[in-house]
Amino acid sequence: MKTFVLIISLFVGNAVNAQSSEQSKQQIRHVMDRQIAGWNSGNIESFMSGYAQFDSLRFASGGTVTYGWKEMLQRYKKSYPTNDKMGILTFSEISIDLISFDAAVVFGTWRLKRSNDSPWGLFTLLFRHNNGEWRIVHDHTSSGN
Amino acid sequence: MKTFVLIISLFVGNAVNAQSSEQSKQQIRHVMDRQIAGWNSGNIESFMSGYAQFDSLRFASGGTVTYGWKEMLQRYKKSYPTNDKMGILTFSEISIDLISFDAAVVFGTWRLKRSNDSPWGLFTLLFRHNNGEWRIVHDHTSSGN
Repeated sequence: MKTFVLIISLFVGNAVNAQSSEQSKQQIRHVMDRQIAGWNSGNIESFMSGYAQFDSLRFASGGTVTYGWKEMLQRYKKSYPTNDKMGILTFSEISIDLISFDAAVVFGTWRLKRSNDSPWGLFTLLFRHNNGEWRIVHDHTSSGN
Repeated sequence: MKTFVLIISLFVGNAVNAQSSEQSKQQIRHVMDRQIAGWNSGNIESFMSGYAQFDSLRFASGGTVTYGWKEMLQRYKKSYPTNDKMGILTFSEISIDLISFDAAVVFGTWRLKRSNDSPWGLFTLLFRHNNGEWRIVHDHTSSGN
């Protein structure tokens, strides 16, 4: 009887884990979709809502490292002062690896479609689950152009 | 008495966690030190021993993604055919974040000192602990030059 209960518990446990893992991936995709929607409506703050408001938030691009949410926002506002500079952002080839119940590594391709050019590249994001929300705590971006 | 035992257990548990966390970081540093030693003796295979021999091993550099250990080795051998091209490699500003008992994200700066130039940049590594060893399963590198 004990063995039977144990086996049933393991099955239920696995089902719950699989469900919560799928749910976590959906939540992460949702955060990224909201980022895209924010960017493409010209709202950098809304795009930035996907990032954790921690001083330890780290953004690496090329050879530059920026720490902190406000510092990152300033950098984005300086680099993308107009809607034309912001262009239309898309993410593709997104792969989400759940590392633990509260951590995921997301890898993918970013593209900006602008009137004069189309910069693109790759990103690696570390998402952490904190206070019921998935947020990016580390972003490493490289350019393909 | 039960409360006392529980408190003691928590203390001991934390001490063990802290110890194993420090031990994990040291093991990861050791893998990276061996990579550096391998590279600087002109041995790319030895450098590559820090990477997991998985088909899913992923190496992202600029806009290029390479999957698989052998494919990555080929790429390195092609890009660095001579000792002069390999130069002297150093890692610095290394930050190791343990995500769980079997996963860590490592961020840092790489530099190559060569006779004609000194390329450098940033790296984000995802280490996983598997079969008693820490190995890189994902590497995202960007150039600062």
